[in-house]
Amino acid sequence: MNTMQDAASHELIAPDFVRAGARIHALAAELFPICRSITGDGVRVTLALMRRHVDMAVHEVPTGTQVLDWTIPREWNIRAAHIKDASGRTIVDFANSNLHVQSYSVPVRKTLPLAELRKHIFSLPDQPDLIPYRTTYWAESWGFCLPHRQASALAEGDYDVLIDSTLADGALTYGEYLHRGASEDEFLFTAHICHPSLANDNCSGLALLTLLAEHLKGVRTRLSYRFLFSPGTIGPITWLARNEAGIGRIRHGLVVSGVGDGGGPTYKRSRRGDAEIDRAMAHVLKHAFERPTLMDFEPYGYDERQFCSPGFDLPVGLLQRSRFATFPQYHTSADNLDFIAPEHLASSLQAIWRVIEIAERNYTPRNLFPKGEPQLGRRGLYASTGGDKEGPAKAMAMLWVLNQGDGTRSLLDIAERAGMPFHVILAAAQALSKAGLIAAQGAGRD
Amino acid sequence: MNTMQDAASHELIAPDFVRAGARIHALAAELFPICRSITGDGVRVTLALMRRHVDMAVHEVPTGTQVLDWTIPREWNIRAAHIKDASGRTIVDFANSNLHVQSYSVPVRKTLPLAELRKHIFSLPDQPDLIPYRTTYWAESWGFCLPHRQASALAEGDYDVLIDSTLADGALTYGEYLHRGASEDEFLFTAHICHPSLANDNCSGLALLTLLAEHLKGVRTRLSYRFLFSPGTIGPITWLARNEAGIGRIRHGLVVSGVGDGGGPTYKRSRRGDAEIDRAMAHVLKHAFERPTLMDFEPYGYDERQFCSPGFDLPVGLLQRSRFATFPQYHTSADNLDFIAPEHLASSLQAIWRVIEIAERNYTPRNLFPKGEPQLGRRGLYASTGGDKEGPAKAMAMLWVLNQGDGTRSLLDIAERAGMPFHVILAAAQALSKAGLIAAQGAGRD
Amino acid sequence: MNTMQDAASHELIAPDFVRAGARIHALAAELFPICRSITGDGVRVTLALMRRHVDMAVHEVPTGTQVLDWTIPREWNIRAAHIKDASGRTIVDFANSNLHVQSYSVPVRKTLPLAELRKHIFSLPDQPDLIPYRTTYWAESWGFCLPHRQASALAEGDYDVLIDSTLADGALTYGEYLHRGASEDEFLFTAHICHPSLANDNCSGLALLTLLAEHLKGVRTRLSYRFLFSPGTIGPITWLARNEAGIGRIRHGLVVSGVGDGGGPTYKRSRRGDAEIDRAMAHVLKHAFERPTLMDFEPYGYDERQFCSPGFDLPVGLLQRSRFATFPQYHTSADNLDFIAPEHLASSLQAIWRVIEIAERNYTPRNLFPKGEPQLGRRGLYASTGGDKEGPAKAMAMLWVLNQGDGTRSLLDIAERAGMPFHVILAAAQALSKAGLIAAQGAGRD
Repeated sequence: MNTMQDAASHELIAPDFVRAGARIHALAAELFPICRSITGDGVRVTLALMRRHVDMAVHEVPTGTQVLDWTIPREWNIRAAHIKDASGRTIVDFANSNLHVQSYSVPVRKTLPLAELRKHIFSLPDQPDLIPYRTTYWAESWGFCLPHRQASALAEGDYDVLIDSTLADGALTYGEYLHRGASEDEFLFTAHICHPSLANDNCSGLALLTLLAEHLKGVRTRLSYRFLFSPGTIGPITWLARNEAGIGRIRHGLVVSGVGDGGGPTYKRSRRGDAEIDRAMAHVLKHAFERPTLMDFEPYGYDERQFCSPGFDLPVGLLQRSRFATFPQYHTSADNLDFIAPEHLASSLQAIWRVIEIAERNYTPRNLFPKGEPQLGRRGLYASTGGDKEGPAKAMAMLWVLNQGDGTRSLLDIAERAGMPFHVILAAAQALSKAGLIAAQGAGRD
Repeated sequence: MNTMQDAASHELIAPDFVRAGARIHALAAELFPICRSITGDGVRVTLALMRRHVDMAVHEVPTGTQVLDWTIPREWNIRAAHIKDASGRTIVDFANSNLHVQSYSVPVRKTLPLAELRKHIFSLPDQPDLIPYRTTYWAESWGFCLPHRQASALAEGDYDVLIDSTLADGALTYGEYLHRGASEDEFLFTAHICHPSLANDNCSGLALLTLLAEHLKGVRTRLSYRFLFSPGTIGPITWLARNEAGIGRIRHGLVVSGVGDGGGPTYKRSRRGDAEIDRAMAHVLKHAFERPTLMDFEPYGYDERQFCSPGFDLPVGLLQRSRFATFPQYHTSADNLDFIAPEHLASSLQAIWRVIEIAERNYTPRNLFPKGEPQLGRRGLYASTGGDKEGPAKAMAMLWVLNQGDGTRSLLDIAERAGMPFHVILAAAQALSKAGLIAAQGAGRD
Repeated sequence: MNTMQDAASHELIAPDFVRAGARIHALAAELFPICRSITGDGVRVTLALMRRHVDMAVHEVPTGTQVLDWTIPREWNIRAAHIKDASGRTIVDFANSNLHVQSYSVPVRKTLPLAELRKHIFSLPDQPDLIPYRTTYWAESWGFCLPHRQASALAEGDYDVLIDSTLADGALTYGEYLHRGASEDEFLFTAHICHPSLANDNCSGLALLTLLAEHLKGVRTRLSYRFLFSPGTIGPITWLARNEAGIGRIRHGLVVSGVGDGGGPTYKRSRRGDAEIDRAMAHVLKHAFERPTLMDFEPYGYDERQFCSPGFDLPVGLLQRSRFATFPQYHTSADNLDFIAPEHLASSLQAIWRVIEIAERNYTPRNLFPKGEPQLGRRGLYASTGGDKEGPAKAMAMLWVLNQGDGTRSLLDIAERAGMPFHVILAAAQALSKAGLIAAQGAGRD
């Protein structure tokens, strides 16, 4: 919690959200075609495109490295893959969609009859035109993902199958960027970088956080802001294993994924349930959206699972628009660039920015004239004509700050108690502070 | 919290509520025509009428006296006011309604064109036949309040304006009455005395509390009861500034305003939210009215604002019928004697009286036979024929007191837990006490 | 709370519930015809039939013995009773239904006119074909209970009345059975034995607990299980007076009555409200029934009244199907063997058994790999193909145990937090324990 002096002195210039939404969508479109997995060159190419915006560090952790209970796996790369029928016609080609190959498939080059091939084919009977997304990170296997309409129409006969992939010693790659503020206390933002051509999940999160980091370069902040772009599960486990000494600096954290569609928004609380990030995000979404969904923590989901494991128990929540696995496009080829839109990316960014404003500016005021109400009128803070029905609302935020400002409640507490947006209560506090009526708790009477 | 001995020995005779309702209405009718403001002779005349019922002290605090963050203003008095048109015809006359002049208007005597006059006219376009109530306590100004139908029909031309008022050094006047009980602990009742001819707001509160104080003269009470009749905001601030040493004696407090209309009732909790007054009032209203409104504290409203400022934080709530500013008559000439009725004043008084009964008689019982149920039957406290479906209800209140009476819960706690009215639980406790089955916690086993 | 070692080592074999339901109904049918009261041979005959299943102790406490605030009354026995009209025709005969005579009626042999007789007749105008159940334990009186249709049709004239009963020094009789487990901590089950021919109230409870006790003979348990069959109110008061030194061993308790009808179920919490029995029963009923009713404690009801008196305050709740006094058959001749059914007795037993499973097996796990998630896949605990929408559910229970298993939450806590049945969470904990990922809190790392 900062002092009022801090709160007053730094300049927290907000992004132009409309323009930012368009730029995020454009970056997501650049990232979309790349075939990412939990390791491999797809991650490196992705980070290279993001580094055009922020000069982030790229870490390579060798195959075989022990990280917490896990081991860095072999690196997977793929050049080509196809299925050809007996006549030599290519019926499935990785070049058309990287979703066609189950991620981490071992190399294959063989001819096999349809019955055998079927054991390696994934399709969605209920969504017969979509390619599903499947992985096999932790079991040596291979597979193709096809629209069910195509899979079910395959003729009897032999098929030539090629997966020109490599699984070999290499590294796990992740990107990390730190915006230094006045304090070493950190706000951690993270997005998973391991999914191939799925636009919402998570080109949206990668692009949004990249441009947020870029914007912060021009802003003086109180907190430091750390950005982590790493493959799901194994990425945060690797980062936590390598950075355990520093995690005590994390005051707030947010996993950002699937923030480009028009649903939700959905916020899943940290394991603590009442961390400041949980309260701030709930506050912001409640005031900014019609029907936000606030979920208690549960141990399935995204990388908050690792940050919120009981041995770390960090104040890290998850922000999404539609909740994962609840919409038909989820983990299919329908999660494409048409599924995400600049205006949704913009409003997601705006919600995040408002939470940043709370993290930066929340403090605990103390009323310096706590006995009775101070006379606002002679200080120019109150309408001079009494009896007007509308008068009260104008002064209400100031009255809340004065009444609740006993040195035990933060501005966020007061905003919640008053049912008013944080920024309205903040503005009232700023006016009262200027008039010498309140000070930050702990600061001297000025 | 008193002991059972105390509870048993004093006589808390209730008023005759029907008769009291009629008498309150009659006193309100006497007070109605007087032009009150936050200072001046209207307050003195009002207190003189109230002193026919109780011999209260009248305090005069000189203009310029510093009270907390405020200063006692100049005293305002008004003899006459009018607007005449160019032909010399009086079109607005203070003698017809004291609402016509904005309270605290500076003296004016001039001729001015309609366009200039309009800057000083208040009216209500949505309620074109009503005169609004307006004040200008803390800014030097003047104004007339007119029905919108009349204001909008004013012809072009010059108007003669007279406000024969004085704003001069004098005093702020307030009345105070103390009914002494066995204890110095106090129950504070207060009503604002500053509004002119508005019947509900607050001739109703002034009259009700005056006759409550009068009734208490004949009653032996445990608590002392303090009554304060002072102008809104500046009145309690003045009283608090002059009586700070004694406020620790205030155990319960109630601001009473607008208690004569047929709406509500509305109780606004003290800032503490769970003071005994808050719990008692909620309990009483829940059992006595169909749909009472219970509001959490908020820093706008009546004089609870001052008592509940963070430097005092007294257990003072607000009782009203319809909540202020939510009904069309609020702060208009429609808040007249037809808007209030004896039966509503009676039921408001009855609710207050039931809260007094709780304040006087609540205590923490201790079951002297806590192991198993004591045999009520052989003590004549239980129906002798078992199996009867109705039997249980009769004994239920006694069973609740015995079961919950472990010395940690008051009768009010038990009444709330049982979902029964306090007086039913009190009667059960009296029967059990008479049978020697319970004692007051802290008292010896009798 | 046991350690995992305990939890793993004992064998908690469940009854065959369908077969048990039929056997409970058959035993209830054996008990139904007997004329029981709070004392007398009816209780002894009932216990004798129950002792064919479990070798329980039968205690006889002499008339006049002081028990807490009560005194053991004289023993009541009845051989015959009738009303004959002037023509000598028997119009009411105890031999047809033991409900015809008010329980504890003094001996009577006299001739009296209808007007006098009526003072001793109970009937139900709203249920004219049913015989009511009435008692007069604590007042010397006598009465007959008749269908209202019959009572209202009685002709004028004299009637011969006979009640061939005795009220004499004797004893109060109760049965008690203890199944010894590894620990002296006890689970107390109790049912009232004082009602005559009422099938649900409480032949059902007596029969169910008798066969539960019989089943436990073949089961190794951690807890000891005490069964008490005693007359309502005076029975538990007698038992508590004689066993006060040992009541600290009671960890959980359940009053079982009216468990054979198709309504409810209804669970009334102990006075504590959050005892483990309260939480376990709520958990089990919520997962096993459509619309269970959970009631807070109130001081009217069954023998939980005594166990939950403030001087004992034991964790004892009440399990019923339909709540007492809410169904038309209650305390009438319609509470007969047709009103209870084997399937309802079976599902009542099953709910009780699931609570026993929780009492036996609940413990507090500690995640031995608390930093990040341990890799379930390489331990064979996780589906190997990622991306599958159904995958998560399979592993969810394990993830909950790992995430919440910080040594402060029991499996029941975790089940409640996860919204999953206890047995699913228990199975997950068993798998994780086998894989070496969790241990019981307090146990060494294995």
